[in-house]
Amino acid sequence: MAKSPETEHPVKAFGWAARDPSAHFSPFNFSRRYRSRFFSFWALSVRFIVCYILKDLVHFFRAPGESDVQVKVLYCGICHSDLHMAKNEWGLTQFPIVPGHEITGMVTEVGSKVEKFKVGDKVGVGGMVGSCRECDQCAIDLENYCSKYILTYSSRNTDGTVTYGGYSDKIVADEHFVIRWPENLPLDAGAPLLCAGITTYSPLKYYGLDKPGLNIGVVGLGGLGHVAVKFAKAFGSKVTVISTSINKKQEATERLGADSFLVSRDQEAMEAATGTLDGIIDTVSVAHPLLPLVNLLKPHSHLIMVGAAEKPLEVPMLPLIFGRKSISGSGIGGLKETQEMVDFAAKHNISADVEIISMDYVNAAMKRLEKSDVKYRFVIDVANSLKVE
Amino acid sequence: MAKSPETEHPVKAFGWAARDPSAHFSPFNFSRRYRSRFFSFWALSVRFIVCYILKDLVHFFRAPGESDVQVKVLYCGICHSDLHMAKNEWGLTQFPIVPGHEITGMVTEVGSKVEKFKVGDKVGVGGMVGSCRECDQCAIDLENYCSKYILTYSSRNTDGTVTYGGYSDKIVADEHFVIRWPENLPLDAGAPLLCAGITTYSPLKYYGLDKPGLNIGVVGLGGLGHVAVKFAKAFGSKVTVISTSINKKQEATERLGADSFLVSRDQEAMEAATGTLDGIIDTVSVAHPLLPLVNLLKPHSHLIMVGAAEKPLEVPMLPLIFGRKSISGSGIGGLKETQEMVDFAAKHNISADVEIISMDYVNAAMKRLEKSDVKYRFVIDVANSLKVE
Repeated sequence: MAKSPETEHPVKAFGWAARDPSAHFSPFNFSRRYRSRFFSFWALSVRFIVCYILKDLVHFFRAPGESDVQVKVLYCGICHSDLHMAKNEWGLTQFPIVPGHEITGMVTEVGSKVEKFKVGDKVGVGGMVGSCRECDQCAIDLENYCSKYILTYSSRNTDGTVTYGGYSDKIVADEHFVIRWPENLPLDAGAPLLCAGITTYSPLKYYGLDKPGLNIGVVGLGGLGHVAVKFAKAFGSKVTVISTSINKKQEATERLGADSFLVSRDQEAMEAATGTLDGIIDTVSVAHPLLPLVNLLKPHSHLIMVGAAEKPLEVPMLPLIFGRKSISGSGIGGLKETQEMVDFAAKHNISADVEIISMDYVNAAMKRLEKSDVKYRFVIDVANSLKVE
Repeated sequence: MAKSPETEHPVKAFGWAARDPSAHFSPFNFSRRYRSRFFSFWALSVRFIVCYILKDLVHFFRAPGESDVQVKVLYCGICHSDLHMAKNEWGLTQFPIVPGHEITGMVTEVGSKVEKFKVGDKVGVGGMVGSCRECDQCAIDLENYCSKYILTYSSRNTDGTVTYGGYSDKIVADEHFVIRWPENLPLDAGAPLLCAGITTYSPLKYYGLDKPGLNIGVVGLGGLGHVAVKFAKAFGSKVTVISTSINKKQEATERLGADSFLVSRDQEAMEAATGTLDGIIDTVSVAHPLLPLVNLLKPHSHLIMVGAAEKPLEVPMLPLIFGRKSISGSGIGGLKETQEMVDFAAKHNISADVEIISMDYVNAAMKRLEKSDVKYRFVIDVANSLKVE
């Protein structure tokens, strides 16, 4: 029996996938790995038989699943990286791809050694479903920087099978990579925090930009940017939104509470703001000039890139040298920090501004996302709109 | 009386200057500012008359000179930035340009309020001769990041006159910007520490790379690079030199004590070293690919650029994001740290490997420098070779 996405694991699953870089999504049958509910003779025997039939006895020994939880997906945010990946713009994609790493849902089954969760718990799954758990990064709760991390989709499990994300009915993950969902945080508008939230929260904390009174810049007012503004405001910062378009000024200042607004093409305003910012979170994932942003920074501060353009960006060295400035990257966050972030968000009533869509709207949503025509995050109402075919 | 470099200040000076971006050096008469030795009626009267003749009464009030010391230049290193500046490659040059910011010499006169120095003291002057002394950067001894710093040459004094560097017989500077020279540090081979030394010492300290047992990369084995190796070794690091040419391997490992050597074009060796370095000091001031260097870094670490290429360099964002890595700049150091650096160098017997030249060899030296044909720093024996014309 040949291995296929539909048969390689014992648990049937269903979602929407893109088959090639045209990034057109359509229904897709695949499978999720087994989670051993009981570590009993009976359960082991069933697993042995299943693995024998699948000619995958290695899997029997390798993936016991005692720490796995199975989650019914309720909502899943659409991150811009879903689109980058579906189009294989970073050259990393495994097709077919089922994207989605801003997943909220409810626990439906738990493995025999699961301690954090019980059936019925509300949970979240973000950008990662695995890491080595042994290296120096894992040891300091930075699984996101483990060299063997397993991304939630289009990555490889330890058994070599491909991971599939949250544009699907269910997901199975080790409990370590599952987040407890705070009671008062909405499952729909909160879902994007699992990527957009942690991606902006983590560098604000790491680079010391969480102290009251600092001047923080946020470049781009999209899915990540609008959440960055909310976190920075919650930390007590003065927030400047930097955008190519004056059209977003009212939104930024009146609705999201930013303190000021800079149009990046307005040279006079940009020059007047030279050297005023303690740090900048740059959320833009298309090519854009970095020099005007570096110039806005005070000495010793960071332009933090959290959106990755397809091609390398040009960086002038002298302005970095003359101000001991840095262009730095930051990618999501570790599980401990992600839990801290959702708890912080719940406490401060932070969630994303979302447009809830049905699964069959995903192709239209991608086209709109490409034109930044969304305020500010699409979230798929998976449970109510995914029709198993 | 029209202002000219020769008459704008009262003290006659002589050096070698480049008049245009052809960067050809030839003898040059100019002048240095007055340092008031006595804050007396007589001294003030003389100054008033001089300033009146020069139609520069503002200067009389602005630049009292009580804190100035006049230094007879003994040695001056040739930094690669002297060449960049003489060719106006950074677009910052004021012609005629008298370069030189690795100056050692002897105090010949002191202003009435000078406390640190007396006539006969051995001193050094590095990359800066002024700053605002009031801003937040100056307040924390980081005058090098003051937005009003005055570079030792081709910069503007507060009175609007141009600064001239150490390819000259004497220099006048506020004592704050003059370094006490340690007794056992040679004046010739030590001179390059005032730029090459502090430029590499400062980021090693600032980015926490001065702790024993770290793995430090040094890109480029020129004037800066060979000193970076010496400091990193003195801090107890394991040092990897990264160079385009295998020819430097023996020098790096046997003579300078580097622990290993990587040829940047050797893809296999570079891949084998992925993620092994705690930090990299990149001293190369011509365009070169940064991605292979970023890949050598461990997560959360810095590729520190201290050599500035003429044009912006291409930086790929994903590798920065996936490892929370930074591309950072660092420029010389504050005066307090520069003093600390020369004291450290004296204690650890660190100086540059130099080729002593006469002033009239400077044009030939620049041509050789352009081809990296020097081990590792030219130092002009100014006092013994500069013939006043």
